[in-house]
Amino acid sequence: MTPVEGSKAGDSGEDARVSRTRVDVARAALELLTSEGSDAVTHARVAEIAGYSKTTLYTHWPARIDLIAMAIESLGEMPHHQLTGDLRADLIGELKVFRSGVVDIRLDRVLSGMAEWASVEQMAQIRNRVNTDGQHQMYAMLGQRFSGAALDAAVSMLTGVVACPAIMFGTVPDDDVIEAAVDVVLHDPAGG
Amino acid sequence: MTPVEGSKAGDSGEDARVSRTRVDVARAALELLTSEGSDAVTHARVAEIAGYSKTTLYTHWPARIDLIAMAIESLGEMPHHQLTGDLRADLIGELKVFRSGVVDIRLDRVLSGMAEWASVEQMAQIRNRVNTDGQHQMYAMLGQRFSGAALDAAVSMLTGVVACPAIMFGTVPDDDVIEAAVDVVLHDPAGG
Repeated sequence: MTPVEGSKAGDSGEDARVSRTRVDVARAALELLTSEGSDAVTHARVAEIAGYSKTTLYTHWPARIDLIAMAIESLGEMPHHQLTGDLRADLIGELKVFRSGVVDIRLDRVLSGMAEWASVEQMAQIRNRVNTDGQHQMYAMLGQRFSGAALDAAVSMLTGVVACPAIMFGTVPDDDVIEAAVDVVLHDPAGG
Repeated sequence: MTPVEGSKAGDSGEDARVSRTRVDVARAALELLTSEGSDAVTHARVAEIAGYSKTTLYTHWPARIDLIAMAIESLGEMPHHQLTGDLRADLIGELKVFRSGVVDIRLDRVLSGMAEWASVEQMAQIRNRVNTDGQHQMYAMLGQRFSGAALDAAVSMLTGVVACPAIMFGTVPDDDVIEAAVDVVLHDPAGG
């Protein structure tokens, strides 16, 4: 254990070995979650992919929900579009970043996996945090044009343009669908 | 086995006893799916709730996906709003029916459960059928105002007003959010 690795473990008080194990196990759990869904995240399969014994996994993360939670937390901050100040371009850009997240890191499976496990309080909290983070920039942008119920509606609507086809049909919208959605929202006279 | 019950089994060629078992097992599986998520739909728990032996369940439905698929198929047709011819009122009505489906029969869990299992071809097909049925009336209504990419966008957007808060936060929108969403979509000059 080197001082550098030791300091990585930080606040958690874990030693470097556990910290490394955590990274490996989280990566394996995330790989299973996004490729096959949360049902595939079992101690046996995560252990096999991560290269640890099942006993090691059960010692640190006794429940399957622990493995799934760790996988989602390993995602870190949700990706966002770099703002330019042009509202239309920024909304389109943000939806394209969300779409890339669905294609590249299967955010649709993360969303449905969190929803599936949300009856467990631990996951309900993670879901709230991840999804609030995910919609934060959309709220800030649309807040320039909308407030109150119309703001909530606009955020759900634009989120739905990417999330609904992904979760309902396993597809993502083309550029022209994303642009049409943003135009519907921005051309609303009530919102101007 | 009476002739009446025998005829119920119909095309499937199953006898009435299996048909009754199927109804009981599907109901128990759906109860678990909507109350706790698809991970709870195991042979052991379904057998316990339905009042059959695990052996009986394994004989007819060897995989967990069989139980989950049967639960979803037991839902039947998706509920829809009775059309009045007033487009605004009909869109609001359809979204309120969808919202009731989330509250009463936990359609959000059905949606996320289907998404979670969609890497299995059997479930991908069920998901396409159920969700196409679910959006059919919304396509017909919005088709009066939109076409092409804008129609796809509008359907995803209004679906998202109910589906996004349900799947992302476990909440449903108030009436004023549903009404604001419909107004944003209908006031779009490009769609008129």
